[in-house]
Amino acid sequence: MSSDDNPNRPQRPARRGFLKAGGAAVAAGASLGASGLTQAAEAKHRAPPAVDPMSAVEPFYAAHQGGIVTPQQAHTYVAAFDLTTTSRDDVIALLRQWTDMAARMTQGQSAASLDNGKDDAPAPDSGDVLGLGPAALTVTFGFGPGLFMSEGKDRYGLAHLRPAALVDLPRFNGDQLVAEKTGGDLYVQACANDAQVAFHAVRQLARQGYGKLHMRWGQAGFLSGPRNQTPRNLMGFKDGTNNPPTSDPKAMNEFVWATAADAPWMQGGTYTVVRRIRITIEHWDQMELGFQEQVFGRHKYSGAPIGQAKEFDTVDLTANDKDGNPLIPENSHVRLSNRASNNGAQILRRSYSYNDGTNFYIERWPPWRQETEYDAGLIFIAHQADPRTGFIPINEKLAKFDMMNQFTTHVGSAVFACPPGAKPGSYIGAQLFEA
Amino acid sequence: MSSDDNPNRPQRPARRGFLKAGGAAVAAGASLGASGLTQAAEAKHRAPPAVDPMSAVEPFYAAHQGGIVTPQQAHTYVAAFDLTTTSRDDVIALLRQWTDMAARMTQGQSAASLDNGKDDAPAPDSGDVLGLGPAALTVTFGFGPGLFMSEGKDRYGLAHLRPAALVDLPRFNGDQLVAEKTGGDLYVQACANDAQVAFHAVRQLARQGYGKLHMRWGQAGFLSGPRNQTPRNLMGFKDGTNNPPTSDPKAMNEFVWATAADAPWMQGGTYTVVRRIRITIEHWDQMELGFQEQVFGRHKYSGAPIGQAKEFDTVDLTANDKDGNPLIPENSHVRLSNRASNNGAQILRRSYSYNDGTNFYIERWPPWRQETEYDAGLIFIAHQADPRTGFIPINEKLAKFDMMNQFTTHVGSAVFACPPGAKPGSYIGAQLFEA
Repeated sequence: MSSDDNPNRPQRPARRGFLKAGGAAVAAGASLGASGLTQAAEAKHRAPPAVDPMSAVEPFYAAHQGGIVTPQQAHTYVAAFDLTTTSRDDVIALLRQWTDMAARMTQGQSAASLDNGKDDAPAPDSGDVLGLGPAALTVTFGFGPGLFMSEGKDRYGLAHLRPAALVDLPRFNGDQLVAEKTGGDLYVQACANDAQVAFHAVRQLARQGYGKLHMRWGQAGFLSGPRNQTPRNLMGFKDGTNNPPTSDPKAMNEFVWATAADAPWMQGGTYTVVRRIRITIEHWDQMELGFQEQVFGRHKYSGAPIGQAKEFDTVDLTANDKDGNPLIPENSHVRLSNRASNNGAQILRRSYSYNDGTNFYIERWPPWRQETEYDAGLIFIAHQADPRTGFIPINEKLAKFDMMNQFTTHVGSAVFACPPGAKPGSYIGAQLFEA
Repeated sequence: MSSDDNPNRPQRPARRGFLKAGGAAVAAGASLGASGLTQAAEAKHRAPPAVDPMSAVEPFYAAHQGGIVTPQQAHTYVAAFDLTTTSRDDVIALLRQWTDMAARMTQGQSAASLDNGKDDAPAPDSGDVLGLGPAALTVTFGFGPGLFMSEGKDRYGLAHLRPAALVDLPRFNGDQLVAEKTGGDLYVQACANDAQVAFHAVRQLARQGYGKLHMRWGQAGFLSGPRNQTPRNLMGFKDGTNNPPTSDPKAMNEFVWATAADAPWMQGGTYTVVRRIRITIEHWDQMELGFQEQVFGRHKYSGAPIGQAKEFDTVDLTANDKDGNPLIPENSHVRLSNRASNNGAQILRRSYSYNDGTNFYIERWPPWRQETEYDAGLIFIAHQADPRTGFIPINEKLAKFDMMNQFTTHVGSAVFACPPGAKPGSYIGAQLFEA
């Protein structure tokens, strides 16, 4: 399984990235990647941040919702809710309130004016991000299958408007889904350059829904390092290199934005799949470097496809080694998920790592070990024009053949229709309720 | 419970902190606090960051370990381990290896040289922070009671060297401790300006101990916002305002650093108490603003003590309102934890918030609700010269009388003796093993 016979194999980095001279600070835009070799390639693909991450502002009212093709912020908090109200008006009122509050918070304001607060009433905002700035907050809303039909009931008169693309996900090979990490009628995804700003947004919105909904699950996630390079996931590999470019409207129209063909109210929206994927880090860390690279189909330090030197070099699925075997293994993650292996399908991955401390586990077979393990992994988030040609066929293949499956377990899953953006004065989902 | 009769009551902030002009970025050092009123006071107490947070370097080899009086970094990962080896030499070898690796990582290097890595062997570093820089990483080690005596056994011949100050913590009123979040023979606290850099450090060290120890618990934590102001905890209040000043060596010698009097090998070390404190955020958010302020004894937005205008104004426990009642309530957190209420005792709090997603709970009494709740709160970390005059008496009082107890539950607990820093060529704990 070694790829040492490859003359293009990049050198190992001798030390971590930032070069220093006498302790002087290096400007944020001048950071090196894992290897100096990849610096030029990264600089071409990633622009250095132009503003202080805490004072950056993302628009809320726009044709598309934020948080989909928005440059990925450093933190997220994602949550799903089950509606308990049976009133269509309640749902509309809630979405109106959520829209107003989300718009305020993305612009660096409290969820509602604190001037209206009284000492003898709960404050309209928890106050825990006062003084922090907008931190590029985006809030993205989505609708799960349960909004349209729940336990056989069309609670809100929306069943006939359910898009065909909003399918119930099939059971994939190896799925170990936990009910309380799976599903949901409403989706709220807050992304920001600060962990507390992201959580704060969901927390204020959740509170407004008391009596109308229950939280089903919530999950914090993070990316490491500055945003001008491809972040590495907890397996140590760069994650997101081969994403379709968000700067290319044509690619986004092809792969990410829904059209009116399926459901007119979804035009300009997207379908979002969320999977909580636990990684057995302890096991992965014991694997040989060469084997890890075979699993991914990429070199670990440079991020280059096996057989190439640089992260953004083209993935050549036809290249063979001197023995005639594929350089990028048949069951590698890169090959199986590559566009060329999936009839041209692509999805926009916008995932985060998660790190929820540790679990104590007891093995159910000899030698019946009892031990503490990391509860850490990936909050996989993928946006696409249609899951039936996006995530579902790609993951059907991965779930069966990907060598990575030894180290990953899907424990949570959900799919949502994220409608287009709202106009000022209107609300998220207006096109659905007014259809 | 209202404090509206107080003429010094600061105004509510009309909007979140950063002022903007035409979208121009505000320099990081010029941020406002929750209220413009507090800006001058904050500027006096907090210096703006002088270097890029990812390229900042903290020394490892020093008289004291890092991560104790070090300016608090934005993220932490703390973990405790139970030793399974019975060999004293194993423990020494592990501490030597941990010392060397921690020293490397704090300087921005991989845990061990990647040049020694082979494709057919596990890499000596998981590689997930390549290119990120040192991010002001500190790694702090501590010894729990079990290193000295475990289940009646003196495994390593150290029982006679256990400091009297390393007491087993008493059971406090209201404690709801969970075994798998409590205790531990060895403590590793990694703090850094990046979540992945902090976790990475613990992960590399844990892996070196396979076969000699089990992880007992691990926990990620974070602070929000830039480091030039007092961070707000998840209850929305500033946390750490009244800490003894780390810039004052006299205060640190009095309250933080252990002396030789109790155990000569601990001179220049400290005793660290860790508590995982869950906060019932949903409940807290429904409380009136005035009541929240009575619970803390401080104004929420400014951070000022009740009856004062600015965060760093003196806490006056003798001040009364016009009816002759104490302005700072008898059972408020600030009064009960104040130095004047504790025979002059102080501890150095260096806590982080945590946010581990959600739990599904089932009530054990009518109306037997089943719902999802946040698993979020505070990783309380306090350093002190002696827990018998520090955390223990202060928390005895808080656990009984603090109004905050309605909203907080202590679910994890540990105490450690953190030895002094290591000299180059030596290792953390050498003074103990060579005593």
